[in-house]
Amino acid sequence: MGYDLYYWPEIQGRGEFVRLALEEAGVAYRDVARLPESEGGGVKALMARLKGEGEGTTHPPFAPPFLVDGDLVIGQTAAILLYLGTRHGLAPADEAGRLWTHQIQLTIADWLVEAHDIHHPIGSGLYYEDQKPESLRRSDDFRTHRVPKYLRWFEGLLSRNPKGDRHLVGDRLTYADLSLFQMIDGLAYALPYATRSALEKAPKVAALHMAVAARPRIKAYLESDRRLPFNTQDIFRYYPELDGQPIRG
Amino acid sequence: MGYDLYYWPEIQGRGEFVRLALEEAGVAYRDVARLPESEGGGVKALMARLKGEGEGTTHPPFAPPFLVDGDLVIGQTAAILLYLGTRHGLAPADEAGRLWTHQIQLTIADWLVEAHDIHHPIGSGLYYEDQKPESLRRSDDFRTHRVPKYLRWFEGLLSRNPKGDRHLVGDRLTYADLSLFQMIDGLAYALPYATRSALEKAPKVAALHMAVAARPRIKAYLESDRRLPFNTQDIFRYYPELDGQPIRG
Repeated sequence: MGYDLYYWPEIQGRGEFVRLALEEAGVAYRDVARLPESEGGGVKALMARLKGEGEGTTHPPFAPPFLVDGDLVIGQTAAILLYLGTRHGLAPADEAGRLWTHQIQLTIADWLVEAHDIHHPIGSGLYYEDQKPESLRRSDDFRTHRVPKYLRWFEGLLSRNPKGDRHLVGDRLTYADLSLFQMIDGLAYALPYATRSALEKAPKVAALHMAVAARPRIKAYLESDRRLPFNTQDIFRYYPELDGQPIRG
Repeated sequence: MGYDLYYWPEIQGRGEFVRLALEEAGVAYRDVARLPESEGGGVKALMARLKGEGEGTTHPPFAPPFLVDGDLVIGQTAAILLYLGTRHGLAPADEAGRLWTHQIQLTIADWLVEAHDIHHPIGSGLYYEDQKPESLRRSDDFRTHRVPKYLRWFEGLLSRNPKGDRHLVGDRLTYADLSLFQMIDGLAYALPYATRSALEKAPKVAALHMAVAARPRIKAYLESDRRLPFNTQDIFRYYPELDGQPIRG
């Protein structure tokens, strides 16, 4: 019996960080909300879990994604990866290494919230069109200050890694590498001009992004229809006006 | 030898969630940036760690708080609590219980970012005064939609806890209870009118907040000068115009 992953069926979103880990690990999983209702799938199945339906449900998640492994229901992307990491060789076995990998993941989670908020600075329940002037201001701050700050930190981690600059932690792939790949991939979609410019100063991060994409299982996944396309309902959204590209004369 | 906690010396901020855990556990710790420079303290000591100064520094934290325990440097509030929880009886010993406690903490961390962003919806590097119209809109959304949603979830957890409604996890205090106390305490300072109204529908959360404040070690801490006062440089800030209180006629 494999894992059941619950996430919104039409976006990569936070679920993608879990999907990448499951795909790289090569373990069986059902992406439940993308299955037909006749197989117990669909958004209906996801909502029932969120509402905590069913007798004795004591751990309803606050939001997707959540992973079900037998009796265990784990919400929060970083907690799911903490759980999967040690089980499937995607994190070091020792406590210090596990905590360090987790700490990197939590920093990516912070960055992700900021990447979302460039198009939703006022409220996640409102349309982008109803918070566009605010989005222009917030994305300017994000491109100018936050992206360079995060990239400097990640580039520094790769430079300082005593086991070499190909991985964030030690000399093997961890879920932190997969998540940094996804973060860069999303930014490159949402802010193509700004991200290309910023990556010029973070060549090791850029190389990690390429190397993860070329891993056999990840490559096969990205080319499959299990990988949903980026779109403007997702956390990463391409709105050209937020990208800061100079107007061509 | 005790722990070294590094956090900004003049605010509660994210460091407070760690301070509360250390105080409740009754373990020795130094709040390094609040010590004089002559004792190796001050903001200078904090900045040196953030910049990764010192030979062989491979795990520089992205931001405070971080905890130093011998050779181990742990950043990210939730990761610090994950580490302290199992060591000091502030989390269940079994994996499922530890993950559940951690998941709750991560949800509080998400809520905290939203509480911060009501006065900084555009950029954390800008002054509040430079993003006030946006703050008015964002705080309205936060009070109207987000606070009730989070409170419903926490009230539901207390109601569903098979071991009773006095704790979020099992029948003993965990760091999740301490963190929920701090979240409510901060909101009650920042948005007194809105929080009082919202808590009427979350009586078990309100009772937990009171019960944590009355615990002997927490009470002694809150009355000590180790507990910094809330202020308008902190994550929680009292700006009356954001509280949504009806104007009296």
